[in-house]
Amino acid sequence: MDLKKFFDPQSVAVIGASNDKNKVGYSLVFNLKNGGTHKRKILPVSLTERVILGLPAYRSIAEIKDKVDLAVIAIPAFAVPAVLEECGKKEVGAAIIISSGFKEAGGAGKELEKKIRMTAASYHIALLGPNCLGTIDTHAGLNASFAAAETPAPGAIAFLSQSGALGAAMLDWAHKEGVRFSKFISLGNEAALTEIEFLEYLAKDKETEAIMLYLEKVSDGKKFMALAKKITQKKPVVVLKAGRSARGSAAALSHTGSLAPESAVFEAACRECGIVTAGSLREFYNTAKLLQLGLASGALDAQKPPREIAILTNGGGPSVVAADLVELSSSLSLTKLSEAATRALAKVLPPIAALGNPVDILGDALAPRYESALKVLCAEKATQGIIVILTPQMMTDAAGTARLLAAYGKKKLVIPVLMGREAVADGVQALRGANLVNFDFPDDAIGALDALAFAIFGKKKVEEKPAASPATPKLSALKSAATLMDFAAARILLQKYGIEISGEFVRAKIDLDAILEELGAGPFAMKVVSREISHKTDVGGVRLNLVDAKAARDAWDEIAKTVRRKAPRAVIQGMLVQPMAKGKEIIIGMKRDPVFGPVISFGFGGIFVEAMHDVALRVAPVADTDARKMMDEIKGASLLRGTRGEKPVDARALTKLVVALSRLALLNPEVQAIDLNPVMATDRGAVVVDARVVVG
Amino acid sequence: MDLKKFFDPQSVAVIGASNDKNKVGYSLVFNLKNGGTHKRKILPVSLTERVILGLPAYRSIAEIKDKVDLAVIAIPAFAVPAVLEECGKKEVGAAIIISSGFKEAGGAGKELEKKIRMTAASYHIALLGPNCLGTIDTHAGLNASFAAAETPAPGAIAFLSQSGALGAAMLDWAHKEGVRFSKFISLGNEAALTEIEFLEYLAKDKETEAIMLYLEKVSDGKKFMALAKKITQKKPVVVLKAGRSARGSAAALSHTGSLAPESAVFEAACRECGIVTAGSLREFYNTAKLLQLGLASGALDAQKPPREIAILTNGGGPSVVAADLVELSSSLSLTKLSEAATRALAKVLPPIAALGNPVDILGDALAPRYESALKVLCAEKATQGIIVILTPQMMTDAAGTARLLAAYGKKKLVIPVLMGREAVADGVQALRGANLVNFDFPDDAIGALDALAFAIFGKKKVEEKPAASPATPKLSALKSAATLMDFAAARILLQKYGIEISGEFVRAKIDLDAILEELGAGPFAMKVVSREISHKTDVGGVRLNLVDAKAARDAWDEIAKTVRRKAPRAVIQGMLVQPMAKGKEIIIGMKRDPVFGPVISFGFGGIFVEAMHDVALRVAPVADTDARKMMDEIKGASLLRGTRGEKPVDARALTKLVVALSRLALLNPEVQAIDLNPVMATDRGAVVVDARVVVG
Repeated sequence: MDLKKFFDPQSVAVIGASNDKNKVGYSLVFNLKNGGTHKRKILPVSLTERVILGLPAYRSIAEIKDKVDLAVIAIPAFAVPAVLEECGKKEVGAAIIISSGFKEAGGAGKELEKKIRMTAASYHIALLGPNCLGTIDTHAGLNASFAAAETPAPGAIAFLSQSGALGAAMLDWAHKEGVRFSKFISLGNEAALTEIEFLEYLAKDKETEAIMLYLEKVSDGKKFMALAKKITQKKPVVVLKAGRSARGSAAALSHTGSLAPESAVFEAACRECGIVTAGSLREFYNTAKLLQLGLASGALDAQKPPREIAILTNGGGPSVVAADLVELSSSLSLTKLSEAATRALAKVLPPIAALGNPVDILGDALAPRYESALKVLCAEKATQGIIVILTPQMMTDAAGTARLLAAYGKKKLVIPVLMGREAVADGVQALRGANLVNFDFPDDAIGALDALAFAIFGKKKVEEKPAASPATPKLSALKSAATLMDFAAARILLQKYGIEISGEFVRAKIDLDAILEELGAGPFAMKVVSREISHKTDVGGVRLNLVDAKAARDAWDEIAKTVRRKAPRAVIQGMLVQPMAKGKEIIIGMKRDPVFGPVISFGFGGIFVEAMHDVALRVAPVADTDARKMMDEIKGASLLRGTRGEKPVDARALTKLVVALSRLALLNPEVQAIDLNPVMATDRGAVVVDARVVVG
Repeated sequence: MDLKKFFDPQSVAVIGASNDKNKVGYSLVFNLKNGGTHKRKILPVSLTERVILGLPAYRSIAEIKDKVDLAVIAIPAFAVPAVLEECGKKEVGAAIIISSGFKEAGGAGKELEKKIRMTAASYHIALLGPNCLGTIDTHAGLNASFAAAETPAPGAIAFLSQSGALGAAMLDWAHKEGVRFSKFISLGNEAALTEIEFLEYLAKDKETEAIMLYLEKVSDGKKFMALAKKITQKKPVVVLKAGRSARGSAAALSHTGSLAPESAVFEAACRECGIVTAGSLREFYNTAKLLQLGLASGALDAQKPPREIAILTNGGGPSVVAADLVELSSSLSLTKLSEAATRALAKVLPPIAALGNPVDILGDALAPRYESALKVLCAEKATQGIIVILTPQMMTDAAGTARLLAAYGKKKLVIPVLMGREAVADGVQALRGANLVNFDFPDDAIGALDALAFAIFGKKKVEEKPAASPATPKLSALKSAATLMDFAAARILLQKYGIEISGEFVRAKIDLDAILEELGAGPFAMKVVSREISHKTDVGGVRLNLVDAKAARDAWDEIAKTVRRKAPRAVIQGMLVQPMAKGKEIIIGMKRDPVFGPVISFGFGGIFVEAMHDVALRVAPVADTDARKMMDEIKGASLLRGTRGEKPVDARALTKLVVALSRLALLNPEVQAIDLNPVMATDRGAVVVDARVVVG
């Protein structure tokens, strides 16, 4: 399906066009007419009016003789299906349904939405909406939206939004702040076309060099990831995902489940794809600003964003705060200036200027002093980005300094932070003139730099992937009630994938001695096996350090007695007898996410550590290299590598378990969640001490 | 010393006054003349000019016949001491030294600064600066600064800044954003008066209802805390502290040291005092905005800031993001609306409006619909604050809605978030007219609400305190080299405060059997004692689970052998023999902060948990109740209370140790750091297994 008609149609019909300024149908025609310099046919359709904004109006789409590339529909929802049918008959290539009152309204609206989806499909109409603002293409000079009064100037950033309101606010904000879009697409209800198809289109769009994306839902996690991975190789993608605090509806049956809520999964998926994620609107907007700055100056290589930062300032306070934030950020650091640079700065700056990083050129600095310092800093190879802070002091020349920044910004990423408002207004204006933007506070710029660098960092770490599994999990399975799998069955299932639970399952006490002999030297652990018991220790179902057969037999009786008392309804199937395992307690888990499918988690175990939520997540399939990276990612990573002379844990053995769990999850869609908890890892091997498998 | 002369002097002399617009001496006279409506004598002093800005100028301060309340000095640094001397002779009450070139310039500047401090002291001149912007009092109509071209309108927030540049930027920003100050004080180098004296003054200042404070250093931690605790009972105090990432110069001799860097100590101290801390300039400014809003509307009780938040919106996207941020914040939550409220909303809103929280009144909402919803939400008792989001859509009435918000803001804290720029400009203007402010993004408001609520939360938790110790630690002790205290001596010192290290110290192997008998049933642990050995396990100096005397004797030999090999220079003083301790591993520590004095830390031990940096801090003295709160504060707090049917640990025993450590630290200023590590805590008691004491 060719989406070009949404952006550069030769002819556009507006159904529901109006001369009433309070109606959407007016704004649509107005924006189409005034939105661009390109010539295209604008064909208003109205039941009542014959001339709209000076253009002849039609009674219906059928009445139009010309070919219609794009129909923009803004009439009451109930009337939309019939009009769409007409569009189909007229062979209209694409339609934007602006009208609301569909799925979002519930009830009959849902039916209406189904109807328009089916009509669009049967007539091969590319359908955007309903319940959206429309599209804007700043290069083709098209404004097929009722959003912006003023059509934005051409730019290199595409903006895709699942919220119309957020889109409208951002267009207005961006216009004022100097952020320039290539295309704007308000996705609405996504009755037919979703963010996926538009992302595919934007991936190839020559005018688009970066993509901003506001998401409330992801239609297809796997497709989204595959596509995003390709796009981010060439164009940075920034996502603001809403609904991060919403809890999934399914009860957290699996313990690891609680460590991998949906939003963490989304974060992990984005990191895998090299997507920049924003945590707030402010951060989302700031990242757009940074992209604008980088793309306009040509000094930002999004595949290699600046990490080594220099700060140039005419005021101590803000630069100290900025230095703090750089140092405290996850991926940035302050460059150590070379001796040559320090000497060069000493030559051109006043004696009491601070020559370190931040470079403080004092409150009376005029543009020439900024220039002297900038020359030196731009020549420093290690420095990848320069934050230039200007505070309004007695003689500060904001405009002159701003013009300078625009010039030097072509050599290296120079980030202007002109602080204040009125006093720096002419400087900000000068930046706008050069297509650049200003940051009000160093914090804003640093946050955006960090987000960008962090995401690319994440991306660089993910290269190889095993081929995606043939068996895509069937999500229908999610609907049935999830239950804990029988221990014996779970053991067999895990075994098939090379995951061995330690020890032997003993059904009757009479077999105990023989099995103990088989297991070799003690001491042993004994654990009750019962489908009804999830947390064995809670019901006295575990005994440790059993030194011999006698102790084991006694333990059997004691466990049976206690469990019967504490969990009278539980059927005891037998006991698991294991050699006591030593090592570091690890938890490896799998949980099926409704959007992204199986997600593998890796973290330290033990109740102390579980309380810390220190866990690494990956969307399956997880390859060997990914598994290793998960081990590096957790906060306690150094402990895996061994501290104070300890040997490192057997990373190969742990990797094997992670990869096996990923494979199992992909090939067994009925498995909802798995916990290998604990896995005891030593320098030679990793022993799975217990496992829980949830199916449903 | 009466600081009133800095804010409402009857006569002000400007030394270094000038007609040259590029000179500070011009701005000072200009601002004094035009800054206010109040009549006061302005007396320019200049060596060269006879009339300045229409005012007769004097050749020297001595030449002035009138009494001079305040002298503002803006001449080259080298000439300042003589002029200050003249001021002294003339009995000038207060002086602001604007000039730079003192301590911050190093070398001779330091000497000059010492000189002016001494001159000021001997003549009883209240001295502000040098190297500062001056003062502004919006109520007295005084602008004795060269900062703001336009003198700000009167407000209720005082702003104290240790950075002039930051002050200038904030004044300009605040003016444009509608934040109004009562007083502005640029502290400069603090040669004489510091933030402490001005805070004392502001505490009593009737026009000041809240205080913003930008700090790079704290002159006296104890004084600062005592004062802040008093002030925050009545007036909220917001601090932005710079230099958070700077590492202290002293090596981290004590292990707990690494868990309690200076910035964490400052955070903890602020929390104890009920101070709001900002992590960035943006957050600092946003908090100022929130205070402006709350103070102007009278709807903010800073002692009981809103925690239960409702969101009202005309657009889905931004409200979802806002809801996320409220839920993810540390102290806020979304109110559950009452059934009555939901019914009332259903009556007045369109059928497809969202009646939950957020309340989404749809894109076509005009002011009356906002009003209908606001009426209902204001009547909800549980709701303490309402974030009202307005996105610019087709028919949105930003100005009308803004006027409404101003009216309803008197009943409850209503926080306007008019998103966009141009499209909502008239709305923002309407808010300004009512002395209110607008937030560009819901994030900004939520961040500020959270900071405020969190700080007050912290404050409420701190009420009782034991009387401060008589022996204030002598900081001079810090200068000498810190060393590890001899084990036996450390043990005796700890014992004096009721802290018993478990087990017996055995000097010679021959005594081992007798001592083992004394200790009772095993198993035992044995640890080498040597002044030269800090981490015993690293040199093979620890043996555990020794079941009897034979095992202990063997262990002695093995330890001695291994230690001699691994640490040949270490003198083995003997072995510590202890019964093996069970329980949860806790670390209790003390480290002397150069500004706040002894800081007590409490957290879980064990290498896994140490990697997580989960620790609670308190500035000594720490009372019983504080100690209990520390235990509640750590992330792993639930583990202390017992999980899965476990008994809680003996909080009384742990409390005793914390309080004892605090006492010891206050009474022994030569002790730099102490680690009780590990302390094994059970449901009956807490055993100190090892301790390290650093003196210096």
